[in-house]
Amino acid sequence: MNTFGNLYKLTSFGESHGKAIGGVIDGCPAGISLDFNKIQIELNRRKPGQSKITTHRKEADEVEFLSGIYEGKTTGAPIAFLVWNIDQKSNDYDNLYELFRPSHADFTYFSKYGIRDPRGGGRSSARITLSRVVAGAIAKQILEKENISIQAYTSQVGNLTLQADYSTLDLLQTESNIVRCPDKNLAVQMIDLIEQVRKNQDTVGGVVSCVAKNVPVGLGEPEFFKLHSELARANLSINAAKAFELGSGFSSAQMFGSQHNDEFAIKSGKIFTKTNNSGGIQGGISNGMDIYFRVAFKPVATIIKPQQTVDIKGNEVIFSAKGRHDPCVVPRAVPIVEAMTAMVLLDFYLLNKRFL
Amino acid sequence: MNTFGNLYKLTSFGESHGKAIGGVIDGCPAGISLDFNKIQIELNRRKPGQSKITTHRKEADEVEFLSGIYEGKTTGAPIAFLVWNIDQKSNDYDNLYELFRPSHADFTYFSKYGIRDPRGGGRSSARITLSRVVAGAIAKQILEKENISIQAYTSQVGNLTLQADYSTLDLLQTESNIVRCPDKNLAVQMIDLIEQVRKNQDTVGGVVSCVAKNVPVGLGEPEFFKLHSELARANLSINAAKAFELGSGFSSAQMFGSQHNDEFAIKSGKIFTKTNNSGGIQGGISNGMDIYFRVAFKPVATIIKPQQTVDIKGNEVIFSAKGRHDPCVVPRAVPIVEAMTAMVLLDFYLLNKRFL
Amino acid sequence: MNTFGNLYKLTSFGESHGKAIGGVIDGCPAGISLDFNKIQIELNRRKPGQSKITTHRKEADEVEFLSGIYEGKTTGAPIAFLVWNIDQKSNDYDNLYELFRPSHADFTYFSKYGIRDPRGGGRSSARITLSRVVAGAIAKQILEKENISIQAYTSQVGNLTLQADYSTLDLLQTESNIVRCPDKNLAVQMIDLIEQVRKNQDTVGGVVSCVAKNVPVGLGEPEFFKLHSELARANLSINAAKAFELGSGFSSAQMFGSQHNDEFAIKSGKIFTKTNNSGGIQGGISNGMDIYFRVAFKPVATIIKPQQTVDIKGNEVIFSAKGRHDPCVVPRAVPIVEAMTAMVLLDFYLLNKRFL
Amino acid sequence: MNTFGNLYKLTSFGESHGKAIGGVIDGCPAGISLDFNKIQIELNRRKPGQSKITTHRKEADEVEFLSGIYEGKTTGAPIAFLVWNIDQKSNDYDNLYELFRPSHADFTYFSKYGIRDPRGGGRSSARITLSRVVAGAIAKQILEKENISIQAYTSQVGNLTLQADYSTLDLLQTESNIVRCPDKNLAVQMIDLIEQVRKNQDTVGGVVSCVAKNVPVGLGEPEFFKLHSELARANLSINAAKAFELGSGFSSAQMFGSQHNDEFAIKSGKIFTKTNNSGGIQGGISNGMDIYFRVAFKPVATIIKPQQTVDIKGNEVIFSAKGRHDPCVVPRAVPIVEAMTAMVLLDFYLLNKRFL
Repeated sequence: MNTFGNLYKLTSFGESHGKAIGGVIDGCPAGISLDFNKIQIELNRRKPGQSKITTHRKEADEVEFLSGIYEGKTTGAPIAFLVWNIDQKSNDYDNLYELFRPSHADFTYFSKYGIRDPRGGGRSSARITLSRVVAGAIAKQILEKENISIQAYTSQVGNLTLQADYSTLDLLQTESNIVRCPDKNLAVQMIDLIEQVRKNQDTVGGVVSCVAKNVPVGLGEPEFFKLHSELARANLSINAAKAFELGSGFSSAQMFGSQHNDEFAIKSGKIFTKTNNSGGIQGGISNGMDIYFRVAFKPVATIIKPQQTVDIKGNEVIFSAKGRHDPCVVPRAVPIVEAMTAMVLLDFYLLNKRFL
Repeated sequence: MNTFGNLYKLTSFGESHGKAIGGVIDGCPAGISLDFNKIQIELNRRKPGQSKITTHRKEADEVEFLSGIYEGKTTGAPIAFLVWNIDQKSNDYDNLYELFRPSHADFTYFSKYGIRDPRGGGRSSARITLSRVVAGAIAKQILEKENISIQAYTSQVGNLTLQADYSTLDLLQTESNIVRCPDKNLAVQMIDLIEQVRKNQDTVGGVVSCVAKNVPVGLGEPEFFKLHSELARANLSINAAKAFELGSGFSSAQMFGSQHNDEFAIKSGKIFTKTNNSGGIQGGISNGMDIYFRVAFKPVATIIKPQQTVDIKGNEVIFSAKGRHDPCVVPRAVPIVEAMTAMVLLDFYLLNKRFL
Repeated sequence: MNTFGNLYKLTSFGESHGKAIGGVIDGCPAGISLDFNKIQIELNRRKPGQSKITTHRKEADEVEFLSGIYEGKTTGAPIAFLVWNIDQKSNDYDNLYELFRPSHADFTYFSKYGIRDPRGGGRSSARITLSRVVAGAIAKQILEKENISIQAYTSQVGNLTLQADYSTLDLLQTESNIVRCPDKNLAVQMIDLIEQVRKNQDTVGGVVSCVAKNVPVGLGEPEFFKLHSELARANLSINAAKAFELGSGFSSAQMFGSQHNDEFAIKSGKIFTKTNNSGGIQGGISNGMDIYFRVAFKPVATIIKPQQTVDIKGNEVIFSAKGRHDPCVVPRAVPIVEAMTAMVLLDFYLLNKRFL
Repeated sequence: MNTFGNLYKLTSFGESHGKAIGGVIDGCPAGISLDFNKIQIELNRRKPGQSKITTHRKEADEVEFLSGIYEGKTTGAPIAFLVWNIDQKSNDYDNLYELFRPSHADFTYFSKYGIRDPRGGGRSSARITLSRVVAGAIAKQILEKENISIQAYTSQVGNLTLQADYSTLDLLQTESNIVRCPDKNLAVQMIDLIEQVRKNQDTVGGVVSCVAKNVPVGLGEPEFFKLHSELARANLSINAAKAFELGSGFSSAQMFGSQHNDEFAIKSGKIFTKTNNSGGIQGGISNGMDIYFRVAFKPVATIIKPQQTVDIKGNEVIFSAKGRHDPCVVPRAVPIVEAMTAMVLLDFYLLNKRFL
């Protein structure tokens, strides 16, 4: 079940050390002039080896489009694309078919399918998220034509938390540093922490926050395709994601209705809410305010430190990871969160047209 | 888009003050002897007026089955059911078509559809969740035959939080009190708080925790139908739900990999993990450990206290709610969370059979 | 899998002798003023006992709407409806659980599900098509606002065939006779034949032809949701349907390209084709010409004449049907073909909006 | 909407003269050892230039697999594959963007999408069916393990019709001649006819018949996913297909129930029907008898003879096709019909497992 979306759909394929990773986008509106450079920029934000705090695997991650485009424009036909895998060091994984790495998908994949591709995590590798970034980058371009923008950023790494409300931040600073935190001072500390964690042969978790602006009123399809439940699903399907909260999120649990309710008011003839605890979504439908949510990511499961585990024959063994891995997934997760958000918003934007 | 599920599917219908609320369950396995009493018990756990801390609306909420059952057994045909609405006091809502209640779905529904049924919130009312409870109750019965159990409970009301790990609690105590908290002392405090909140013409939020036991290894369908992303989607589609976390959830963001990883070990020839930060799901697939997650609910938006809002003509107005409403949604949300969880687990259980 | 459609969806439920038959329509555009009388008229065209050449079962078949409508208008919420079964004579079927009627679904249902509701054919009864007629009647009303019309008619009963091209017929005469054949003289013969067949304790097959006019260019979704493949699927899912042909259909097999090709020409600035062997669809997409297709229906399987069959215990037995049945399904199939066609056209009409 | 299937799904991509044509198969059972040679053989049956009666376009049509396979076995991950286009002679189509070829999809694609890839028909080319053949070839291999076989053959070319019932034919002779007709004498005549037609700068239609044997009882999902309605949909989505009939098909319209009904009997403890007018499907579910159906294909629309048409600017013009095209699609359609049938049968086979 490797297809995401209702009208704008991505079918994804590929494994970490297979020939290629790619996807097919079905339902892309026709006649869109694509900016291929912008797509590559998004892939570069996700790609390994982009900075000292990511994995050192070297991949060009250059996307090749195979169909659905004629003279630079989408035709309405499915858009197939792929990225060839180049820098596989499958030797690093030679012994991995024999054991189940802790907190990886080795055990569950093997149990479910009775077989698994062990090279670099196979299908369960975070590398396969690059398909999402391509489909999200195209969605973003279409949304931009409608003036809808999406910006995610790193708001927590380990115990370093960006407390400020997003509205007080200069989100354009996100790309000014390699950890993608709009607070430059905190960014420096986060980078230091990640480097320290790597030295400790360990990894660390974090949080990505995301803001979508200028989303029109009306996106979202009750009863079971509420906009926030789909955003949650989309973002929690990213590797290592563990939690999602919209607007006030978990903090709403300790609030009173009189504190939490977002009162309506009028400015320049336009209805808005004076606060935005709703995170831009009410009753599962966008209300025109900023959509705001947060996604928590666990520490990367691959650590160099020795751990106990079990092998395929049922023996308890000690395991130390080799290979090249990220000490913290969050900086590279930022563009993936944006991509998933873009896909959801475009999908619901297209769905909403059926009633107009 | 009122259908939930892939193979076990609920299509839901109805409005708070319409003739009836109900649904159609498609894909229910055939030949199952249904225990109708158990289904009604689940509805009773959700129904209004069940205790002093819920809304005083009186509804029998007796479910009537229309199809798909022959001599007490499912036939594989769609199971249609409904509950007639009886105690509508639509007069309470007489003026509601004219204005948008804060943090309700009035504004977004009206903007999206250009029309809305204002009586009791119409389609956006939490009353429509009763369809979920019926479909979930049937799913539960089928899961029970496979020894899979699901238990949710109230773990937070306002600032009263049940800190203990679920594994140290006697979850069978959940139904021993009207707030559905397995810690009896905390339950008393929670009930007091809710009553106080009602007196204050206010409402309060909370958290429901949920545990599923004996889920077999292998449920969940990567890449985009991971078990936890579907559980998130399912539970966040419940009215007033704002946040979801699996296992370690948001707390994983501040952890190191060496702390967070769940080491595998063997007991009696069976693989298990020594800790369960994964919440029973790895790589989107159940690993045989307890599935554990938490869902935050905002305070009910309907408060008696006056609030500012906007009417349909674009005037700012002051609004005080009438009608009968819950001061805290959490006690009645407990069976709904269980129902959504049961539907997801059964759906993935059936999906998993295609490969066996 | 009892849901039909992509954006305009019908989920159907009910059995011939259950409490009720009905459905839920999801995705109906909001704000549509429904003409309930017109819906009932369509049901009356399908209902049993409407004339001397149909089954004598007496059912009012009055549809009751439960949701999705407020003050006579659709709200965008799911529209649930039902028809209560009244004139069940289940006694007629007392012994039917024990044997498999020839060319009925008894054997296959029982084999597939391990259980079946034997009363009147249960879920496999043609009576359950009334849900389609309701959903189709609503679709028709919406299409009519776009000037799209659909007219089916009886073009063959047994060896009596209406040879004339549809464009030479006055299709408005279709409802002028009980067999629904626009050629009045042939209609008389068809009625005689059906009465004769009934007297012979037999049944007879036939063909329904269908024409949709003013369908805009562009409906249909290649590669796998071509307009004609969906029309085929829709109509072949009707009970007793055996064959489908679009435009030239089977006769195209013996034609040359130079005969069969529909040359384009221009009239009043509008592109049209000089012939219409394509039946209004090219490459799976409507081309603006009349959509024309034919559906063959086998003779009703229930005959009074004795037949050999097998019982549930594996004995060969002789069986003679009791109960009240149609000698020819075609006159009552006419409104069902229209309904399925309306659902498909509206669904693709709504799908097409996503690109505009 | 380029995805076909419910559990075994093909997402197809590519254009006639684009870089590549391919697809992604999702839901393939894991652990299957694929015979890649057999897949290529199926592609060779479909490929252009295979004989004197097909188009002379030369393509190796060698399939390359990109994912989902590890050490020759399926892993349960999506199987992406492609065939690079090599022998494009796009010059042949230089002027084709400017006009709408009669009975092609040029006009409808352009009208629907506002743009089209004119090279070789772009997305509407029959060349894109090769994706179906790959997915069907894999489905066939899995079905063969269950002893299910599928054989299609040419039963009509123009006015040359194979009248014999399929059960009297030696279907293994199908591949013994280039027109794929199991009657060798008729095959010679068909080949002559096709060659004559080509000389006449014309094309001719035909019929493909298909038989599936050893299909277990129980495949098919009423109400709306009946086995025959899905087979119809599948086969009518093939380029140039115009009509479908199951078993007795259109001839059932002139039959009486007493003639048409398939009486049940018992042989060696197994239930069977003495005749098979049902074509192996009753009530939308396979009954264990041979599944038998026929698909009509129109004459190829590309003819060398001059025809009138209209250009993009709205002028009537005379058009004569260049390029290399098939004089009759039927011989190459045989493996495509088998492929679609295999996909449908495997899909329903997997669906049926959910209830077991």
